[in-house]
Amino acid sequence: MTLLAIGTVAFDSIDTPFDTRSRILGGSATYFSYAASFFVPVRLVGMVGKDWPDRYSQLLADRGIDLTGLIQHPTNDTYFWHGRYSQDLQDRETLVWNVNGFDQFKPVVPAAFRDSRIVYLGAAAPSVQLETLEQCPESQLVVADTVDAWIETARDDLDRLLARIDCLLINDSEARQYTGVQNLVKAGKALQAQGPRTVIIKKGEHGCLFFHNDLVAPCPAFPSESVIDPTGAGDSFAGGLVGHLASLPSIDESGWMDAIHTGTVVASFTVSGFSIEGLQRIDLNEIYNRRRIFRTMLGLHRPQ
Amino acid sequence: MTLLAIGTVAFDSIDTPFDTRSRILGGSATYFSYAASFFVPVRLVGMVGKDWPDRYSQLLADRGIDLTGLIQHPTNDTYFWHGRYSQDLQDRETLVWNVNGFDQFKPVVPAAFRDSRIVYLGAAAPSVQLETLEQCPESQLVVADTVDAWIETARDDLDRLLARIDCLLINDSEARQYTGVQNLVKAGKALQAQGPRTVIIKKGEHGCLFFHNDLVAPCPAFPSESVIDPTGAGDSFAGGLVGHLASLPSIDESGWMDAIHTGTVVASFTVSGFSIEGLQRIDLNEIYNRRRIFRTMLGLHRPQ
Repeated sequence: MTLLAIGTVAFDSIDTPFDTRSRILGGSATYFSYAASFFVPVRLVGMVGKDWPDRYSQLLADRGIDLTGLIQHPTNDTYFWHGRYSQDLQDRETLVWNVNGFDQFKPVVPAAFRDSRIVYLGAAAPSVQLETLEQCPESQLVVADTVDAWIETARDDLDRLLARIDCLLINDSEARQYTGVQNLVKAGKALQAQGPRTVIIKKGEHGCLFFHNDLVAPCPAFPSESVIDPTGAGDSFAGGLVGHLASLPSIDESGWMDAIHTGTVVASFTVSGFSIEGLQRIDLNEIYNRRRIFRTMLGLHRPQ
Repeated sequence: MTLLAIGTVAFDSIDTPFDTRSRILGGSATYFSYAASFFVPVRLVGMVGKDWPDRYSQLLADRGIDLTGLIQHPTNDTYFWHGRYSQDLQDRETLVWNVNGFDQFKPVVPAAFRDSRIVYLGAAAPSVQLETLEQCPESQLVVADTVDAWIETARDDLDRLLARIDCLLINDSEARQYTGVQNLVKAGKALQAQGPRTVIIKKGEHGCLFFHNDLVAPCPAFPSESVIDPTGAGDSFAGGLVGHLASLPSIDESGWMDAIHTGTVVASFTVSGFSIEGLQRIDLNEIYNRRRIFRTMLGLHRPQ
């Protein structure tokens, strides 16, 4: 099914305890689209600035990502984030965060994108997510991500968004913050009660909790021996998940479970390098191979 | 196969943010034995004090736990721990810790226990664990747990212990402390290199990482909507795990996977109440029912 994604396309500077990178390709929509592009073509809506190099657009276009909806601002710079990770890579602090006008971004969904059936609303102001959704009248499955900032400052918009979407992706700490409930099983059900029949609470290196109708299912992360940079793990989890769903003729519960496993292994490739390097090194076969190994780990079967 | 367990039999006082209990039945060997007793008879080696009530011995004996090896000290009190949990139940601090001579405990394995084939060495000084093991010449599977205190103070003994056991159970923070390695996959492999071909790194509410020969497998915890008291979760995980293994005619990799799932669901019953209340409410059928539900959650199948 046709897939549209909106979110940030950005430059990141990353400090880990072991290495650093300056102004590398990043952004929620970048990771999402690249990850999803293994499965289906992706229609991207977003904004970059005057400092955006053509070679990055080419890199995404070469993956079958349609950039008709990616506008380039004539005077602003591109969204920029500089973060530093803790010794165990489990926490990070923001050193610099220049949204460079993305908070004023008025998304315009190109006419050719308006028949999109699956819509991914990457982390952005809920009002921007809602505006995007208004322009996709044929959407059948709407998946949204959110971040803590909007829970604080745009609670009403976020409530409205939740009533309109089918699936919410949210971090564990954000789920607790939004619902005021400590227990994650209760928090997930409270979020479902707000609208989305599917909720995925992301727990970083501990995997996720998946709520789908009356099913509650934990899924661990793929155990990685080499984690270089966790940036983009959540966004590429979403890309693998939604990309897989979009590749199915129809979506049932077992399709969702496969999608969770697919997103999990895609994220494990992302964290094996900076930026999208880990994804650039692989193909769909490697994703399926690792997904088979992952299922073995869960006790499903031993590979032949 | 015959199963022998050693560890603490204790009184606990527990403060959670929601409720408190004073001097309730606790201890690593208590939780372990009660959990394992759903699957096989258990031979217990341990020590209680002069304040130990007969009704607790009766309670354990009624579960098929052989108390021939449980000695009662004539003058000391029973091992006592008073702990307080944080708001999210994920951290705890020790308020009172009276080992009451358990650090001087000289384990004596009764003659009738010396043919035990499976030996569980619950958290105790490694020297005590080794002394117990010496008295079980027919052991075929030795599983040991450890705690951070011994990593600091009895490193050499712990190294000797690791060379003698088949399976190590250890917390994530302890695994990092012992190996000096942050990444848990690397830490688990480093522990295997010290001796045990099976290592299980426990991550509390996030489940565990299972290392068995060349297999590395994550297993999430069972998602519990009602967690009353996490005390004993790790010990009853071990009890369900080892109890299941002891019930098998022979142990292969798939038996280990089943055992991990069994320990996981047994622990979920333990945390649903104080002390062993959660285990007292159930029978083996309920364990198997929840294990089937858990496997569905992992994507194995949907129950009929």
